[in-house]
Amino acid sequence: MSNLDHRKATKTIKVTDINGMPVKNAKLRLLQKSHEFLFGCGGFDFVALTNVQDEKVKAHFQDITDKWLKIYNYATLPFYLGEFEKEEGKPETQSRMNAALYLKERGVTLKGHPLVWHTVCADWLMKYDNETILRKQLERIDREVLGFKGVIDMWDVINEVVIMPIFDKYDNAITRICKEKGRVGLIKEVFERAHADNPDAVLLLNDFNTSINYEILIDGCLNAGVPISAIGIQSHQHQGYWGAEKLYEVLERFSHFGLPLHFTENTLISGQIVPAHIEDLNDYQVSEWPTTPEGEERQVKEVEEMYRILFSHPRVQAITTWDFRDGAWLGAPSGFLRKDGSVKPAYEMLRKLIHEEWKTDMTLTTDENGVATADAFRGRYEIDLKESTTEASFTDDSELVITV
Amino acid sequence: MSNLDHRKATKTIKVTDINGMPVKNAKLRLLQKSHEFLFGCGGFDFVALTNVQDEKVKAHFQDITDKWLKIYNYATLPFYLGEFEKEEGKPETQSRMNAALYLKERGVTLKGHPLVWHTVCADWLMKYDNETILRKQLERIDREVLGFKGVIDMWDVINEVVIMPIFDKYDNAITRICKEKGRVGLIKEVFERAHADNPDAVLLLNDFNTSINYEILIDGCLNAGVPISAIGIQSHQHQGYWGAEKLYEVLERFSHFGLPLHFTENTLISGQIVPAHIEDLNDYQVSEWPTTPEGEERQVKEVEEMYRILFSHPRVQAITTWDFRDGAWLGAPSGFLRKDGSVKPAYEMLRKLIHEEWKTDMTLTTDENGVATADAFRGRYEIDLKESTTEASFTDDSELVITV
Repeated sequence: MSNLDHRKATKTIKVTDINGMPVKNAKLRLLQKSHEFLFGCGGFDFVALTNVQDEKVKAHFQDITDKWLKIYNYATLPFYLGEFEKEEGKPETQSRMNAALYLKERGVTLKGHPLVWHTVCADWLMKYDNETILRKQLERIDREVLGFKGVIDMWDVINEVVIMPIFDKYDNAITRICKEKGRVGLIKEVFERAHADNPDAVLLLNDFNTSINYEILIDGCLNAGVPISAIGIQSHQHQGYWGAEKLYEVLERFSHFGLPLHFTENTLISGQIVPAHIEDLNDYQVSEWPTTPEGEERQVKEVEEMYRILFSHPRVQAITTWDFRDGAWLGAPSGFLRKDGSVKPAYEMLRKLIHEEWKTDMTLTTDENGVATADAFRGRYEIDLKESTTEASFTDDSELVITV
Repeated sequence: MSNLDHRKATKTIKVTDINGMPVKNAKLRLLQKSHEFLFGCGGFDFVALTNVQDEKVKAHFQDITDKWLKIYNYATLPFYLGEFEKEEGKPETQSRMNAALYLKERGVTLKGHPLVWHTVCADWLMKYDNETILRKQLERIDREVLGFKGVIDMWDVINEVVIMPIFDKYDNAITRICKEKGRVGLIKEVFERAHADNPDAVLLLNDFNTSINYEILIDGCLNAGVPISAIGIQSHQHQGYWGAEKLYEVLERFSHFGLPLHFTENTLISGQIVPAHIEDLNDYQVSEWPTTPEGEERQVKEVEEMYRILFSHPRVQAITTWDFRDGAWLGAPSGFLRKDGSVKPAYEMLRKLIHEEWKTDMTLTTDENGVATADAFRGRYEIDLKESTTEASFTDDSELVITV
């Protein structure tokens, strides 16, 4: 369907014996173990799994997270200040570290979300003056970015800045300092701090606003020297699928900065669509919001089209499904698992797409020069050759030599 | 009505004799000759006046411009590349210089408009590649800013950048380079060039877009170190008066950058209002667009309210009426003169406001220490004392000593 050359490495593999002589007619099996592309999902349930005591509850989360691990290689972990540090000076560092290490051991790349945001913000910050609020935010960045370095090296540094200084639903500490410092001024300060703490970290600006506002904001930040590694685009589609046309338009508009694009928060629901007149999704409060068979059929088609478009676009490096299971944010039927833990069609479709269609498993035979060539999806590989097994990363077109 | 302290200087005037002894009971007359505040208007008719040969035509423009000079102290002169340099290498430098010198001799402050814009742009630029287009734009900036230095020291450097890269009505050279360099990148380049050419010049960014887009654009530019001296806000109200509420809101939103605000292009018409569904005013084409008695009554009220609000706001340094006479841009009844040259109520109201209500003409008597104190509108003054006349600028509260 689409051209996926940019997702592949053209790999030349040379097999030699211990004297350096080519081994011809050798049979090689290339088995892809993981993807370079970041197929992500919210990993909040891993915090529960790795921290609850009750065995029944643990088993429940074990089932959910085992299914999660069958699809994804990349998790977003929650660092909302209002939950992470409910009481000043008592951060939830240990619970997040438990989840992070559990995921890291299983080869999952991690991102912390978010370091600065006006929502789910700590109320205790509001008792301070603006200078102190900013200082405490910067110290918070130090604590998390330094404290998790080597485990979490990717951060949504600041979230939803387009609306931040004019957010008026309730008073909060971050809107106050954003009003005072201006959008770009605040972004610059918090990014520079995170970058100083971990110069190798991937640092994201993240927003649900995909209008010209966000484009101009990014343009200003880049010209002001803000060390943005990737542009984060949210796509919560509770009010209906964007459709291919809007998706291509957003991709085109945000591509010209030359930075990687991460679809950081993707939602396509399998139930009732939220009416168009609702401006803030948080205002849609319903007692029951069931998944439906028709909704699940719609969801699987939309998820597939969207993943195919995004995977085929060279600038996109990551897609994160926001809710893995129904009933998380807003109680929406937004997951790939139903509330009873059974999988929806979208789960099975996505598993096949990522682990069959977009994954390499091929057998090659070397020619008379001991050489075989493969177009293989980028990622980590196991190469089986008779009784020996070699591990290698396929991320570029360099030659690989295997000695038997 | 409003507090105008920020428009006044509290001046202490001391009168001494040649031995330095105070002169008491001396009668002083303070007569304001000009304003510090920039009361501006489009000065395009001065280009006609100072360059036409035909005596009848000249007399027509003489009448218009004499009426102009009775109100304003600040003129915007046209430098649209597509008219200024219709044929490459043949700029209209002399005609603009004739107009500029005529105005300067009469004490009028000047602004050139604009140095870079995608509209009324030169078609011949389009035959070049983007690199050459940018180089020619920068050379154009050098030519005008250096060539008019000392005569014109204020420039609308770049016009309407919010829409510039997505402007799609027709192909043009500036949209092309803005697409490539991005908004802030292009703004930075052209401002830095103008600033290097004339470091003392007042350099404006100017836009009709007063939305959050423009705020974020300014924020980005300032954080990227763009040397913006003042924020230009257009207010063409062919579709109806903004009203005080919107005006206060715009003032509040654009004040927080700490820069002076210039209302660069103000229009309030005295005829039929343009329907709300018209998106681009240039699309409103009518054969006749007359001024009406009711329209003129509406216009005078709206102009007065707007000038009072803007003059009372400390950040505002300039208000420019766009069309002095009817039938200029779009053929609209947008002027303060009718097509037959007669003055509308708005003309007389504004003359009184600026030259009576907001102008100082007072008589003082010195006390026993030879001192008199005046709260006087900022500007140039003539101080008459018996047979002697002293000229002075009242722009701060410093003491003035007059020796008789």
